[in-house]
Amino acid sequence: MCGVFGISGHDEASHLAYLGLHAQQHRGQESAGITASDGGRLVTFRDMGLVADVFSQETLATLSGKSAIGHVRYSTAGGSFLKNAQPLMVAYRGGQLAVAHNGNFTNAAALRRQLEASGAIFQSDSDTETVIHLIARSTKDGFEARVIDALNQLEGAYSLLFLTKDQLVAARDPKGFRPLVIGRVKNAYVLASETTALDLIEGELIREVEPGEVVVIDEQGLRSSFPLKRQAPSRCIFEHVYFARSDSTLFGESVYETRKRLGAQLAKEQPASADVVIAVPDSGVSAALGYANASGLPYEVGLIRSHYVGRTFIEPSQSIRHFGVKLKLSAVRATLKDQRVVVVDDSIVRGTTSRKIVKMLRSAGAREVHLRISSPPTAWPCFYGIDTPSRQELIAASHSVDEIARYVTADSLGYLSLEGLGAAVGDPKGQTFCHACFSGKYLTPLSV
Amino acid sequence: MCGVFGISGHDEASHLAYLGLHAQQHRGQESAGITASDGGRLVTFRDMGLVADVFSQETLATLSGKSAIGHVRYSTAGGSFLKNAQPLMVAYRGGQLAVAHNGNFTNAAALRRQLEASGAIFQSDSDTETVIHLIARSTKDGFEARVIDALNQLEGAYSLLFLTKDQLVAARDPKGFRPLVIGRVKNAYVLASETTALDLIEGELIREVEPGEVVVIDEQGLRSSFPLKRQAPSRCIFEHVYFARSDSTLFGESVYETRKRLGAQLAKEQPASADVVIAVPDSGVSAALGYANASGLPYEVGLIRSHYVGRTFIEPSQSIRHFGVKLKLSAVRATLKDQRVVVVDDSIVRGTTSRKIVKMLRSAGAREVHLRISSPPTAWPCFYGIDTPSRQELIAASHSVDEIARYVTADSLGYLSLEGLGAAVGDPKGQTFCHACFSGKYLTPLSV
Amino acid sequence: MCGVFGISGHDEASHLAYLGLHAQQHRGQESAGITASDGGRLVTFRDMGLVADVFSQETLATLSGKSAIGHVRYSTAGGSFLKNAQPLMVAYRGGQLAVAHNGNFTNAAALRRQLEASGAIFQSDSDTETVIHLIARSTKDGFEARVIDALNQLEGAYSLLFLTKDQLVAARDPKGFRPLVIGRVKNAYVLASETTALDLIEGELIREVEPGEVVVIDEQGLRSSFPLKRQAPSRCIFEHVYFARSDSTLFGESVYETRKRLGAQLAKEQPASADVVIAVPDSGVSAALGYANASGLPYEVGLIRSHYVGRTFIEPSQSIRHFGVKLKLSAVRATLKDQRVVVVDDSIVRGTTSRKIVKMLRSAGAREVHLRISSPPTAWPCFYGIDTPSRQELIAASHSVDEIARYVTADSLGYLSLEGLGAAVGDPKGQTFCHACFSGKYLTPLSV
Amino acid sequence: MCGVFGISGHDEASHLAYLGLHAQQHRGQESAGITASDGGRLVTFRDMGLVADVFSQETLATLSGKSAIGHVRYSTAGGSFLKNAQPLMVAYRGGQLAVAHNGNFTNAAALRRQLEASGAIFQSDSDTETVIHLIARSTKDGFEARVIDALNQLEGAYSLLFLTKDQLVAARDPKGFRPLVIGRVKNAYVLASETTALDLIEGELIREVEPGEVVVIDEQGLRSSFPLKRQAPSRCIFEHVYFARSDSTLFGESVYETRKRLGAQLAKEQPASADVVIAVPDSGVSAALGYANASGLPYEVGLIRSHYVGRTFIEPSQSIRHFGVKLKLSAVRATLKDQRVVVVDDSIVRGTTSRKIVKMLRSAGAREVHLRISSPPTAWPCFYGIDTPSRQELIAASHSVDEIARYVTADSLGYLSLEGLGAAVGDPKGQTFCHACFSGKYLTPLSV
Repeated sequence: MCGVFGISGHDEASHLAYLGLHAQQHRGQESAGITASDGGRLVTFRDMGLVADVFSQETLATLSGKSAIGHVRYSTAGGSFLKNAQPLMVAYRGGQLAVAHNGNFTNAAALRRQLEASGAIFQSDSDTETVIHLIARSTKDGFEARVIDALNQLEGAYSLLFLTKDQLVAARDPKGFRPLVIGRVKNAYVLASETTALDLIEGELIREVEPGEVVVIDEQGLRSSFPLKRQAPSRCIFEHVYFARSDSTLFGESVYETRKRLGAQLAKEQPASADVVIAVPDSGVSAALGYANASGLPYEVGLIRSHYVGRTFIEPSQSIRHFGVKLKLSAVRATLKDQRVVVVDDSIVRGTTSRKIVKMLRSAGAREVHLRISSPPTAWPCFYGIDTPSRQELIAASHSVDEIARYVTADSLGYLSLEGLGAAVGDPKGQTFCHACFSGKYLTPLSV
Repeated sequence: MCGVFGISGHDEASHLAYLGLHAQQHRGQESAGITASDGGRLVTFRDMGLVADVFSQETLATLSGKSAIGHVRYSTAGGSFLKNAQPLMVAYRGGQLAVAHNGNFTNAAALRRQLEASGAIFQSDSDTETVIHLIARSTKDGFEARVIDALNQLEGAYSLLFLTKDQLVAARDPKGFRPLVIGRVKNAYVLASETTALDLIEGELIREVEPGEVVVIDEQGLRSSFPLKRQAPSRCIFEHVYFARSDSTLFGESVYETRKRLGAQLAKEQPASADVVIAVPDSGVSAALGYANASGLPYEVGLIRSHYVGRTFIEPSQSIRHFGVKLKLSAVRATLKDQRVVVVDDSIVRGTTSRKIVKMLRSAGAREVHLRISSPPTAWPCFYGIDTPSRQELIAASHSVDEIARYVTADSLGYLSLEGLGAAVGDPKGQTFCHACFSGKYLTPLSV
Repeated sequence: MCGVFGISGHDEASHLAYLGLHAQQHRGQESAGITASDGGRLVTFRDMGLVADVFSQETLATLSGKSAIGHVRYSTAGGSFLKNAQPLMVAYRGGQLAVAHNGNFTNAAALRRQLEASGAIFQSDSDTETVIHLIARSTKDGFEARVIDALNQLEGAYSLLFLTKDQLVAARDPKGFRPLVIGRVKNAYVLASETTALDLIEGELIREVEPGEVVVIDEQGLRSSFPLKRQAPSRCIFEHVYFARSDSTLFGESVYETRKRLGAQLAKEQPASADVVIAVPDSGVSAALGYANASGLPYEVGLIRSHYVGRTFIEPSQSIRHFGVKLKLSAVRATLKDQRVVVVDDSIVRGTTSRKIVKMLRSAGAREVHLRISSPPTAWPCFYGIDTPSRQELIAASHSVDEIARYVTADSLGYLSLEGLGAAVGDPKGQTFCHACFSGKYLTPLSV
Repeated sequence: MCGVFGISGHDEASHLAYLGLHAQQHRGQESAGITASDGGRLVTFRDMGLVADVFSQETLATLSGKSAIGHVRYSTAGGSFLKNAQPLMVAYRGGQLAVAHNGNFTNAAALRRQLEASGAIFQSDSDTETVIHLIARSTKDGFEARVIDALNQLEGAYSLLFLTKDQLVAARDPKGFRPLVIGRVKNAYVLASETTALDLIEGELIREVEPGEVVVIDEQGLRSSFPLKRQAPSRCIFEHVYFARSDSTLFGESVYETRKRLGAQLAKEQPASADVVIAVPDSGVSAALGYANASGLPYEVGLIRSHYVGRTFIEPSQSIRHFGVKLKLSAVRATLKDQRVVVVDDSIVRGTTSRKIVKMLRSAGAREVHLRISSPPTAWPCFYGIDTPSRQELIAASHSVDEIARYVTADSLGYLSLEGLGAAVGDPKGQTFCHACFSGKYLTPLSV
């Protein structure tokens, strides 16, 4: 779970990177970083924390130049340390090089063993360091050729941005797992994981970077090629279900509209005898509205999300339990009192949060709680860049829907079907999206 | 704009105060503080910042004892300095004393001049210091009698909590401007500005502290009296419109339900030929749902509020303007594209934010923007504890509705009437609520 | 133990205060603060920590104006809290007032009880707050008259600086316990505890503020009066022995020269059969040089003081002991090996540090260790502003010189006599200095 | 300018490393770091700042295990950035590896170009990263063999410590430029740049690690070898003149005694008609004592060094100049007034500091100022690990002694001769010490 941003040709490149990362903060809250090039030298600043906390006027001022790449990160591969924050920056034969990566290389471990065997040293735990070694060791001429040489050895999911002193290079894996768009702000080209970044900086969306495409931006302008072996695309369906922000245009579609369709389809598949539909905010709101519209039940606010949830919160040693969810969500008694409530959420991971939410709704007066999930049971881990827990921790990997319903103490529980999900995202046959987290059908070889 | 919390008789008093303040963080984000008593000695910790940032495990550990009071603050009277953070704590003839105050004494300046004339020194700019001087100088016997003696000299709005080594005393002004409720958690009594604090700590609401009531909690239990001159109540109507959290039960009523009624009434008074109703989140959501229901128009999400807005944000020096609102809100293009949009907000203060929102909606594709406000024009400053700007800065003080509509560039603008507002809060004749910010009818003498 | 600084009539008043406090940092390392006046308004910034850490370019910039007072503090009366940091600043009938105090009022507790009885509130534990109350309650006309009225009620030791919007007032108690000098830098008047402050800012020493003198500096220039009851002076002899910096001119005498005389006198009174004289740095160096010269023994460096002693140092949980002194001092083996060593220190308080030093010298090879102290046994606590421990903790209060020698494991121990001390400071009859810490002859009534 | 520390076989290894670094803080104040091994895994913590500021109880607690290496750093090669802080830690074919380096590889740039040409990537600017690459790429079997293979390719100055999960390896270059000693504390072996580290942790000095020696410490104990090509030793003479702490035993000699001999020799070579000898503290004190003894002039304290010099100090914008030295040093008027003063310092680099000191002495009353330097003119930069400025900035590279005397405004200036220096350190023919900074005779090939 990461977000990337790149810009080339703007006098305030690092400042726009800062804003573009802020607009993608939902894609990673653990660390943030920017590398800028002034045409001669790259400078990187990165630290643990949110974009607005990591950067100050002073640090941004050190990041001068007309091109920049940035990154926000939430774990995936590699633990939670500063050394794993991105962009990674190194010096190699070709000069300075920085890279920002959203995704996960599925053959990184094997490649790392090979690289180590031939004398490579690694300073982070991140799989991203692998691609830098491959570029540095490539015998091809020219940076673009080296990048392509490296990518031809890598498998898995990647939306990658590279910055050298005079080039900004973007690459997206042939299956197009992770999003990557290209836009313009004035005369500058912009690359971003999500369109939210373009919206904030008042940029204009040009198009998606296509699966398998490599884009090079430099003084000659922008050029594009498709040097990687063509593969059938398999975009990440979970971006639509949960990960992207609902005001994004993702893979060419409005996330908000798609989620409303998920909710509408869910209402058809999993109706409920109830008085009111509420959402688990924020990700469940769009689907809840779709469910309410399709079912004819009224949509109400039943849970409120706090704006002040600190990342470290001190819990009392005794007497009171389960503050985790309560600090983040609070129940609206007036909506719930004596009502039969449909509560719509996007997914159930371990089940513990859902269980707390159901209990919170009941203790605020709900007579019945019908939990509806706008995706199929999440039964398989993601190896393509979403930070899901291991299969043992996924409640749907080992429990039936009835068992999960009992565990979360809901009066009823209904998931959207895989077919319904496909229909809602415009992929009824399940051919253009990756749905491995629901189906277990992984689309690349997995190594360890 | 402040929130208070008090607890007596709990082994983790300061910890519950911490949670109780967090649940009232929306009432003040500038400073936070807690004073605890271990039966012998009071200890205070307070600092600028959010509750979760101000306190650490270490600082909470220093606040031992079974009773505590806490405070979150956003200016009102007194500038933005640590010395104005509360609780204020002093030593006087009667020992140690701490006080937390929500409201504003309207005769504080005159009293301060009198006190200074007789040799008093003031260390803060806050009007709250006045009540401490009056208590310290009272010739009455016993702490409760001194408090009452002091309150009899004070006018204006106050929900006050006092902590001594062995007593927790609460007082609410005779008009009951600001809310104050009493509840229980296990064997401990709890006092809080809003019921949200009780909900978080799994406490039980007993009742409001009544206007003019003084409550004393000590080893003998709780006793109540009404020692202040009776007056007609005039609760703050703006708490219902904007300030309280929508899951609160305020003055005995659900804020959420009340706001939905405001929206429904607004739809009746100010209909619009439109395709969709959206809210300015978060405070406009309830009213927007009420408007949508009453008007028959669909409710959609048209603006999303960011969870990551830092308090200091670095803006680019050139090229890009007006980031203030854009960093906080983003528009959902799919909802707005080519639509005639009703956007519901709770109030217009200076007009600058509304203007930016209207522009943001248009640049996301809205064909028409009809701004609807779920309260009358805010034309008068509040002297009872809400931090409104001066009358010169209130756009409605000097501009007609048409002029405001033009300024904010809306296709139409409609406010709720004062009568409609009264009806929605159950005070059709405007007799039990203070609506001075809308009507200019101040209910206490104002001195400077 | 505090240092004060005041300046009036300089465009960079707060900046010079910052430097002047830094030059007096040895007088107090716990907190630092500055109040500046721009002619209309006073602004104060103060915090726990060293001068260079407390202030930043930003905070200094907020302290604008042509006059300022500052303070560095190490406890004395009042615990170790921010609220006790100075300058204290209040508003009272006469406007804003700030005060910085070096010394200790010996009747503060009694006055505080009286003030509380008549309704005063206290926000700090510091005795300094008392003088502000007395000024605020004075019925005299004019600030100077109020100050004099207040001082006439106070006993004990004080070198005080007061700042109002348009006046800088300095006062020194009639016995002149604590130093206070007046100087000039360009057209500005400067007040400081020690001449080191003048030296750093390239100012010129005019003279001491006399015991019992009150100096007022404002637009009319400087005027002086002696409104307090005349008393025989009793300057603090311990300033010469230990507290002042050795490059200071104190009470008109060079501290360095005085300390060398102490050492020379000590050599006469307490000779030793030894090979070498070393000092406990830094305060013992001058006396050690005097001892070496007078005794004919060579002076060598036997102990080095670290420049990097942090205030919090983490000690290993096991295996190693007594790091306190070792982190600060290290022994020079080459000087000590097989030598009979005279080690000169200024005083022995609890004896624990001396004991560690003697052991450190022996384990670095010293054959004999002869401890010589350049003052008499410290047997009585100071009530005039030096932060000594209670009488129970002073080893000389309950132990003979022989017993102390055994405790600190020295081969011999010799103190300077009270007569010798008096002779060295030019007060052979003990009439112009306070030597209560050695003699127990307190020169003012002491109340609790 | 760096210091290293290593320990193996102690339950509180990282804690002793922390103390050992603190005792060598004078060797580098820019960054500090420790890597610890618990037998399975290495953990590193490092940051910019002093040892006591970088580490906390919490961070030390994460550094568990029985062996550790640490490093304090002041620039040399590589700019002032966290990425250049040491120990460097990587993973490579052989597992985890950390390295701490004092010195400078004179062929690092050439090696780096070779390594980059074969695909290596560099994440720091430090020359130390080179040795890691060479180890990782070595085809030898076993860690010790790989280290030796790497060292055989490296030229210049190095005292190196390597830590793997189960071995601590130390190596010193064949010329022995930088010091490195081996000692014991209980059953643990300790390695340190200076004996001060052993003294603080109450360890016992065993001996120097010899030039060209490689020491391996693991479960089998300690073994030593001399696998590198033998060369004539050339220890750094500047360690004796300035860099080492005066209580150290350096290259088998007392630094304090050596410096006194330098001073005595200087008195012989460069006598002065004067009244008093003073030192520039702290490094000039030993030589000044030697000068005073040899010349028969009295030694006095004429300059005092502040204990409170912050690393960032805010200077006034106008009016006052040259605070740099004045904040650190202050003049003792009583010593200087009307005197002819010999002031002894260890070296003159740019001349600016000496100039300020001379002026400070004069404005404190000195009638004549005779500057004596306890080493020859510093006319050549160091390539072996001392952070000297470039040759252009060294005043002695382009100015005669007379010109320098005029620049620093001294009445006379005298340097120690190279022969005198050699005599004082026991190397009269200049054969066992490196004196390239004085003579320009570099003892290794220099590449860029």
